[in-house]
Amino acid sequence: MIRNVVIVGLGLMGGSMAKAVRAYTDCKIYGWNRTRAVAEEAIREGTLDGFAEDDVLAQTDLLVISLYPQSTIDWLAEHMSKLKPGCLIVDFVGVKQCMVDAITPLAKQYGVHYIGGHPMAGKEFSGFAYAEASLFQNASMILVQTESSPLWAVDEVEGFFDQLGFGRVVRCSAEQHDHMIAFTSQLCHVVSSAYIKSPEALKHNGYSAGSYKDLTRVAKLNEDMWTELFLLNREPLVQEIDEIIKHLTDYRDAIRDGETERLRNLLRDGRMIKESIG
Amino acid sequence: MIRNVVIVGLGLMGGSMAKAVRAYTDCKIYGWNRTRAVAEEAIREGTLDGFAEDDVLAQTDLLVISLYPQSTIDWLAEHMSKLKPGCLIVDFVGVKQCMVDAITPLAKQYGVHYIGGHPMAGKEFSGFAYAEASLFQNASMILVQTESSPLWAVDEVEGFFDQLGFGRVVRCSAEQHDHMIAFTSQLCHVVSSAYIKSPEALKHNGYSAGSYKDLTRVAKLNEDMWTELFLLNREPLVQEIDEIIKHLTDYRDAIRDGETERLRNLLRDGRMIKESIG
Repeated sequence: MIRNVVIVGLGLMGGSMAKAVRAYTDCKIYGWNRTRAVAEEAIREGTLDGFAEDDVLAQTDLLVISLYPQSTIDWLAEHMSKLKPGCLIVDFVGVKQCMVDAITPLAKQYGVHYIGGHPMAGKEFSGFAYAEASLFQNASMILVQTESSPLWAVDEVEGFFDQLGFGRVVRCSAEQHDHMIAFTSQLCHVVSSAYIKSPEALKHNGYSAGSYKDLTRVAKLNEDMWTELFLLNREPLVQEIDEIIKHLTDYRDAIRDGETERLRNLLRDGRMIKESIG
Repeated sequence: MIRNVVIVGLGLMGGSMAKAVRAYTDCKIYGWNRTRAVAEEAIREGTLDGFAEDDVLAQTDLLVISLYPQSTIDWLAEHMSKLKPGCLIVDFVGVKQCMVDAITPLAKQYGVHYIGGHPMAGKEFSGFAYAEASLFQNASMILVQTESSPLWAVDEVEGFFDQLGFGRVVRCSAEQHDHMIAFTSQLCHVVSSAYIKSPEALKHNGYSAGSYKDLTRVAKLNEDMWTELFLLNREPLVQEIDEIIKHLTDYRDAIRDGETERLRNLLRDGRMIKESIG
């Protein structure tokens, strides 16, 4: 039974999680943030019941940590010994194999249950100021079971997230997660950022519509976070970039050589894939 | 003074133009459509005052033609002699140099004024059923003056489109248009279509969020229309595809080689461009 929840890291994701837990459950919620003033503000506005001091950690049923990758590992290494044995831990880092490798041995050592997590939600803004309880509405939540987490622990975490408005909870291995996310999320940010590097970008005003807006939206990214995430998922991401370069080269050649049928087939195939998978 | 308007081609764009002219002006509106039943439906629902028969063409002040590129040229070649001398003609084809080259000599021969047009609006659906008067709200309308159109004719057309809810009217040369549009629109469709070709695409369900949705939205395109448009703008489009391939290769190399600072700089540059130009 999850009664006491701690949220570590009150940025867009952690802050939204705190607000969602407040909105949709009766749990007590405590928070930790590197810049303590943010947690103070969250207490003042009623999102948090208090700071996640050591005595709170010793009573925590579920700890959700939403920091950058290395900071997540460092924070857990420092605080895990203070957690209640049997505590459930879920991180929100966007790559999972490296997290599972780093955190699982620690969790086993301290008798807590670590489950990798990744909410498929976000915005092109960051910080607690943009956090909202509805951020996860209809989004997908990915969970990765580890050697430190028995099935009942994953079930309990799934039941908890189910209350917060997620559209579905998906379970997979860390490896499967990292390959999928290289394509569905990381590549989006690489392509969007590369797109906007054309010299024409500086002159686009008045010459663009929705498609341009969509393609370049996530170019407005946090380069510190994404640099860390990309480098922690090098192999699958390089594979996906090579894949799109290969396809772009096909389209380029068909256009350059004026091959009408080849180009139409390339575009039709793309449309049919899009129509079949949504 | 524009009183009688003819819309040729009642698809998404032409149909929306007819509805916008109905909603925001007092003009008489007549229509032509290859499948005549669509024009009949538009008359029945009150969007059109009637068919654009020959006697109507002889009284037309403004003719807006929204067909595929070659069909636009063919239709005008066949019907231009029936238009009132001094009639204003605007086409909606998404590439302009080839249209200006084909239509201007005809327009001069028949004493009508041809202005190239391109409304920066659209949807990933096509056909009159999706047409709406509000499609152009706050969109940009691009106008290309030609040797057949004196400045007053462009001014008159601009004044007309100003009434329909466009956010702005931009004037440029056909060459400038085609270079910009290769980047702001055509490349979006190429990239989106190439994106979805990864084998991972078939398994993305539950592993994607807004960025994936945005990047792949326009992969649902009309391959006949875009094949024609791409091949009419080969040189600028090939240049833009080469440009994004070059940048993607930069990102790929930085990730593959684990070059943190280089990758961070690439991403920061992209963010700063996006922030500075919107």
